[in-house]
Amino acid sequence: MAAVRALVASRLLASSAFAPLHACTPRAPLHSSAPRPGARVALVLSGCGVYDGTELHEASAVLVHLSRGGAEVQIFAPDIPQMHVVDHAKGQPSESETRSTFAVDGKDCKVHEDVERVLKEFHKASKPIGLCCIAPVLAARVLRGVEVTVGHEQEEGGKWPYAGTAEAIKALGAKHCAKGVTEAHVDQKNKVVTTPAFMCETELHHIHDGIGAMVKKVLELCGK
Amino acid sequence: MAAVRALVASRLLASSAFAPLHACTPRAPLHSSAPRPGARVALVLSGCGVYDGTELHEASAVLVHLSRGGAEVQIFAPDIPQMHVVDHAKGQPSESETRSTFAVDGKDCKVHEDVERVLKEFHKASKPIGLCCIAPVLAARVLRGVEVTVGHEQEEGGKWPYAGTAEAIKALGAKHCAKGVTEAHVDQKNKVVTTPAFMCETELHHIHDGIGAMVKKVLELCGK
Repeated sequence: MAAVRALVASRLLASSAFAPLHACTPRAPLHSSAPRPGARVALVLSGCGVYDGTELHEASAVLVHLSRGGAEVQIFAPDIPQMHVVDHAKGQPSESETRSTFAVDGKDCKVHEDVERVLKEFHKASKPIGLCCIAPVLAARVLRGVEVTVGHEQEEGGKWPYAGTAEAIKALGAKHCAKGVTEAHVDQKNKVVTTPAFMCETELHHIHDGIGAMVKKVLELCGK
Repeated sequence: MAAVRALVASRLLASSAFAPLHACTPRAPLHSSAPRPGARVALVLSGCGVYDGTELHEASAVLVHLSRGGAEVQIFAPDIPQMHVVDHAKGQPSESETRSTFAVDGKDCKVHEDVERVLKEFHKASKPIGLCCIAPVLAARVLRGVEVTVGHEQEEGGKWPYAGTAEAIKALGAKHCAKGVTEAHVDQKNKVVTTPAFMCETELHHIHDGIGAMVKKVLELCGK
């Protein structure tokens, strides 16, 4: 039986080429799972930290759960300059350019053309797609009428500081389904699975478990 | 009841000042657990990646499991230049100096003086100490007769590529106890808990689970 493919993307991606992240070893390549029978999964990351790209705990949790699910993972990232590079000791950009992203442009955001292409091609081929944190906005932007979650729709005293994102998702023509941080929403028709992750201010293990729920559902949709 | 303190250290540390890693937010401080009743844990990291410091998946796994165990975590790191800075795209040092570490000097390694002080002070005060991957060498170097594990003592076809470390641990006067990657060894007398983590070439979820076992035992020794 041919391996089924899935896409799991972490956080929002900006604007032109896509490159696999190569191993930089003599040790295990990025400590990803060794090839073995299972779902073949493309993990799409961007940047290298919560303020200029993929949140590290989210990336690690995705890889832990894909490993547990027996997936064969290949990691990809846009091979382009970042919008800005953040000094993680200060939490501030250490240089700046302008590039179109949701964080800057809201519902008028543009999506990296290769990310848009891959999402549309996976969707057209009925391959499952998993997205966490702010990344569900990508699906809302490029897959009309898709159902996604970025968590709750009210701030609830700071627990959901980015709750306004749900309205932006609706404005993009998608359906927002409120979910808790340890849950994943499954759009069965579109095979799109989403989880809030760090859209919620909560303890790290809840983020880990929510991403686990997302990965499990993606692999189930792969028939794994 | 006064909170009990534990120390969890990840990977080997080099040679002079110790500084808490400050939050760089407006978001949750390093996504660590929010303060709440539970064990008070100092997490000691160094550098920022597998070739020049703490392995990221190990650091994330420690924080996930401490969060699940309800610990209150503060993160520390030596506030000194690294031995070398690694270009993680190439897996090679991008500059070099010399500084004494186990990776370079084996059993004749020197231990960062504040790390040695903290380990000895925690030990003297009967506070539990957790160490993963190569970090158990630190305990072997500074706590005479301690029992630790860095995994198996034979390479077993590449599964334990750093198996020779066990001999170095014995040469330092410590006892090496062979353990599997998902296990933790508990030295009850010294309250030192160790797990092999990435001393083993295996799937990521096994590393995650082994670190979970270490954290659980450390928190149990705290009476949590």
